[in-house]
Amino acid sequence: MRATILNCTLKPSPAVSNTEALARVVAGGLEAEGVATEMIRVVDHDVRFGVSSDEGDGDGWPAIRARILASEILVLACPTWLGQPSSVAKVVLERMDAMLSETDEDGRPVAYNRVAGFVVTGNEDGAHHVIAELAQAVVDIGFTVPGQAWTYWNMGPGPGPTYLESDHRKEWSHTTGLAAARNLVAVARALEATPMGAPPST
Amino acid sequence: MRATILNCTLKPSPAVSNTEALARVVAGGLEAEGVATEMIRVVDHDVRFGVSSDEGDGDGWPAIRARILASEILVLACPTWLGQPSSVAKVVLERMDAMLSETDEDGRPVAYNRVAGFVVTGNEDGAHHVIAELAQAVVDIGFTVPGQAWTYWNMGPGPGPTYLESDHRKEWSHTTGLAAARNLVAVARALEATPMGAPPST
Amino acid sequence: MRATILNCTLKPSPAVSNTEALARVVAGGLEAEGVATEMIRVVDHDVRFGVSSDEGDGDGWPAIRARILASEILVLACPTWLGQPSSVAKVVLERMDAMLSETDEDGRPVAYNRVAGFVVTGNEDGAHHVIAELAQAVVDIGFTVPGQAWTYWNMGPGPGPTYLESDHRKEWSHTTGLAAARNLVAVARALEATPMGAPPST
Amino acid sequence: MRATILNCTLKPSPAVSNTEALARVVAGGLEAEGVATEMIRVVDHDVRFGVSSDEGDGDGWPAIRARILASEILVLACPTWLGQPSSVAKVVLERMDAMLSETDEDGRPVAYNRVAGFVVTGNEDGAHHVIAELAQAVVDIGFTVPGQAWTYWNMGPGPGPTYLESDHRKEWSHTTGLAAARNLVAVARALEATPMGAPPST
Repeated sequence: MRATILNCTLKPSPAVSNTEALARVVAGGLEAEGVATEMIRVVDHDVRFGVSSDEGDGDGWPAIRARILASEILVLACPTWLGQPSSVAKVVLERMDAMLSETDEDGRPVAYNRVAGFVVTGNEDGAHHVIAELAQAVVDIGFTVPGQAWTYWNMGPGPGPTYLESDHRKEWSHTTGLAAARNLVAVARALEATPMGAPPST
Repeated sequence: MRATILNCTLKPSPAVSNTEALARVVAGGLEAEGVATEMIRVVDHDVRFGVSSDEGDGDGWPAIRARILASEILVLACPTWLGQPSSVAKVVLERMDAMLSETDEDGRPVAYNRVAGFVVTGNEDGAHHVIAELAQAVVDIGFTVPGQAWTYWNMGPGPGPTYLESDHRKEWSHTTGLAAARNLVAVARALEATPMGAPPST
Repeated sequence: MRATILNCTLKPSPAVSNTEALARVVAGGLEAEGVATEMIRVVDHDVRFGVSSDEGDGDGWPAIRARILASEILVLACPTWLGQPSSVAKVVLERMDAMLSETDEDGRPVAYNRVAGFVVTGNEDGAHHVIAELAQAVVDIGFTVPGQAWTYWNMGPGPGPTYLESDHRKEWSHTTGLAAARNLVAVARALEATPMGAPPST
Repeated sequence: MRATILNCTLKPSPAVSNTEALARVVAGGLEAEGVATEMIRVVDHDVRFGVSSDEGDGDGWPAIRARILASEILVLACPTWLGQPSSVAKVVLERMDAMLSETDEDGRPVAYNRVAGFVVTGNEDGAHHVIAELAQAVVDIGFTVPGQAWTYWNMGPGPGPTYLESDHRKEWSHTTGLAAARNLVAVARALEATPMGAPPST
């Protein structure tokens, strides 16, 4: 079983990413369950604005898309800006929009029988809403979202330290992240054993 | 396998409910898959404001809660007001908040291994957002949301006819609702065959 | 100049309300600007589900509505449940939906030239999103939302103490609340001096 | 008085933009009120990911930022993808995040006494939510959002024609857009005549 974690930070490597740091906890949990896990910092690749699977001309999306489709588990790791998901996460969702009309050899949308979870960081407030946005979008596309398949860290109200700068309740974020990893694997295995079929033809 | 559909209309019976009308399409799809399906109009019961499982004194919630916990499938059917979920849906979610700390005999949150889907109606705009709010809340609580486990009907922009008054693209809403029913049943069966375990103890 | 603060807690009096406690800071700021300010705990009144201005039969809404329309400033004070606004806040917005079609003697929607602001509490996360929901709804209805006309308190991640139980960064919430009061008064005065006219007739 | 309209389409020029087409209605309304209005297609400029006012090295944002600060009125025109604002709109909001800590010579946040409105297009559903996201973000930054300062067009449910391909209820979108233009100008004029002061110093 394989997992792809897309880090949707605004900061290209080698800048330190708080989102990556918390996502590593979930990655560790996935690997402890025997899942081969790869993390991609999206902004390091030249992913174009658009809603197709290939915008041509050096577009970095097709390679990322191939990794998503080679994985049973997708984790979107996302910082919070103004209480909302990052623009990079929105670029990813818009590019995944093309999956709405892509089916496998059995006529199933390509996202069926894959699961998605979420990691959110921010220095203030907004994680539940970021999860809502990401969850609705991936469910639209066909991913299944397992119960409690997310974790987050922040410490509102107002501006303050980042995840890496703080010790505020990180234990809760880590325990919750490990539970998310287990839940992602559990539902991915259930769907592997008993897959969803194709939707009724229209 | 059993399903409970909670109709979160603001209008008590016997007023006609557009939300109920579209939810019946999903109910038909569930029943065609052999699922015993019951629909409850929440506002007909005396469900109190609160965040406990029993607010006492004639509270209508405990009976509804029992039906949710007797079902593998939950469908929240919700009208749209000002582009947002109805207050009745929020009452339901707040009462379900208590499930966050309730576990079964194996130490699993009571919502684990149950799936949830959504039916949204409105005469203007807002369905995707209503689904986002409902999905995030039930995933928080522990329900799994299958891919494409929802349908909706509206016809923005601006005020206009209701679902029952219109013929606008209802075919799409019905086909999508039948697919939602199939996806709910498929993932519920997968979780029945290969259940999620308890989260790691903290 | 008058202000009405609607406390949308789920808890009837005399239960202690964290939302009321933070709203009192904003009330103090409004009164310091010479604004006569009244706070109403909505759940203490028998406000019915619905979308009309009077649901009849002992409905508590008409009295609250009269106070809103007697005030230039409306403050919605709202707790956070599952990262979202309370059901009581949604009841209020649904009842205010009727104002969409109510105009004054000059043909202006009744909410024009009134301003609205927000106070949000919670023990975890969600304030920015609660503000987004409330702001969009009142702007739909015709209220103007001044810049930085809100404050909030929470301390994610995960469950923890309430506003009244904690000293975590309350200074920020109070300073921000006083700024919100000033901004509400400033824009209310600007609209009093230079009012919006009626929209173009359709 | 000046207005800047930022078209947040994903499609670079010369591709046809439905969002631009509806935004032109609001631009016409603003110009009819004597407001000098400029429309910028953000994706045509090389705006970088980030949260500062200048990311250096050919960044297209500083020129756009200068136009925002030279205008009393900002209109964000945004397409809808998966029921949510476009990534380009999120890039804009993230770059505007820097304005949170920028003040004028009187110590006021630079966004104070400016107003913001919204134009949303999509071929399905999601406008109210897009408006909620955009409104919350700009209010955070300090812009004032006048009552009913938005318009939208879509025609849910499900996929369908675009704004330019359809005649579905465009009259409503146009009338509402002209009202939005009037409301933006009215509140901008009120704030010009009676400006907000600086917030209390902390």
